[in-house]
Amino acid sequence: MNIGVLGTGIVGRAIAGRCTELGHDVMVGTRDPQATLSRTEPDRYGGPPFSEFHGQRPEIALGTFAEAAAHGELVVNATEGAASVQALTAAGAENLDGKVLLDVSNPLDATAGMPPPLFVSNTDSLAEQIQRAFSGARVVKSLNTMNASVMVNPEQLAGGDHTVFLSGDDALAKAAVAELLGSFGWRDIVDLGDLSTARGAEMYVTLWVRLWGVVQDPIFNVKVVR
Amino acid sequence: MNIGVLGTGIVGRAIAGRCTELGHDVMVGTRDPQATLSRTEPDRYGGPPFSEFHGQRPEIALGTFAEAAAHGELVVNATEGAASVQALTAAGAENLDGKVLLDVSNPLDATAGMPPPLFVSNTDSLAEQIQRAFSGARVVKSLNTMNASVMVNPEQLAGGDHTVFLSGDDALAKAAVAELLGSFGWRDIVDLGDLSTARGAEMYVTLWVRLWGVVQDPIFNVKVVR
Repeated sequence: MNIGVLGTGIVGRAIAGRCTELGHDVMVGTRDPQATLSRTEPDRYGGPPFSEFHGQRPEIALGTFAEAAAHGELVVNATEGAASVQALTAAGAENLDGKVLLDVSNPLDATAGMPPPLFVSNTDSLAEQIQRAFSGARVVKSLNTMNASVMVNPEQLAGGDHTVFLSGDDALAKAAVAELLGSFGWRDIVDLGDLSTARGAEMYVTLWVRLWGVVQDPIFNVKVVR
Repeated sequence: MNIGVLGTGIVGRAIAGRCTELGHDVMVGTRDPQATLSRTEPDRYGGPPFSEFHGQRPEIALGTFAEAAAHGELVVNATEGAASVQALTAAGAENLDGKVLLDVSNPLDATAGMPPPLFVSNTDSLAEQIQRAFSGARVVKSLNTMNASVMVNPEQLAGGDHTVFLSGDDALAKAAVAELLGSFGWRDIVDLGDLSTARGAEMYVTLWVRLWGVVQDPIFNVKVVR
């Protein structure tokens, strides 16, 4: 399948790399591909520059947000939450219309100190904001409740015996995302319901951040025991 | 130990009953004990009236909020979140000073439709509001992330292999609550940190409500897999 991954950070790289391993044809989207490739300093989180990742995975194309969205039959929003609507606007509503848009972002307000609060929560969610702004896209919220490495390789933790959530208004779009998640190794995929259930999945991240502080290792997740 | 349980609803009854079974001397507190005992209609959630519970557990004393708080060496806030500060005010700051106050409540806004949003979240929590209002109390947030039956008998689910959280500013108060939780059967007790971490535990309830809708049975919980 052709997949467009918007965002060149740790989440975008993890998803792009895993999808490529699984045989998909992936294009990563960024605001300015030349600028992204020419950067040689570590990214803002101290990780290697994108060019280093790209040197190891030359089969992954890099394009503009619009080119990557146009490329994808399924598009992944792996941009930072605060920049997501802007990135999707650059991608272009016409390149998202009718497509499954897997929204992995979190509405973390990085300007407000640590741990970051959410810039939208409780009576709304970033997923719903994105759906309202791009009404032709078939938004599915998922994978926002764990570390990037766990997202794409759940079996590294407890043999995969833990849970990922899905929220969305389009049943077929959720089925397509569930199939992709299954190919990543996810076995316990809980469909929470319509897109408003993304509020809970996004608000959980406030607990996740604190759990990270306790567990000290980002390779953890929750399992719904029932 | 003498324990005061504020609140006569399903959570208060579950905790009062379990603590009594474990040999503690429990007094339940309510606004107007005579009114609580004289009610014969189901409670607002369709459960049996308190008098029926009290008839089965006559060893559990019923008093005013102030009497129950004065009775307790450890006091449990099991009132509805929207009424908690008012109930604790009726209990009296002087009856809470220096005591461990186990806050089990959730800031659910029952006036705003289903599922209920939170009336405080993100940059504050109900636990912190209570701590600010009753600065002499040693507030510990816990047990707010599951159904009342699971709270007091975790071993009924997966042999107890799931997680309960603790938040609070007072290490000795958290140790006292952890000991009580251990006596209930909890084995995986995760201390999230200071009382501000209660924001995450309270915000998680938004996800819990949706999970209840999916699981259909309130006897579930999350396990932190690490």
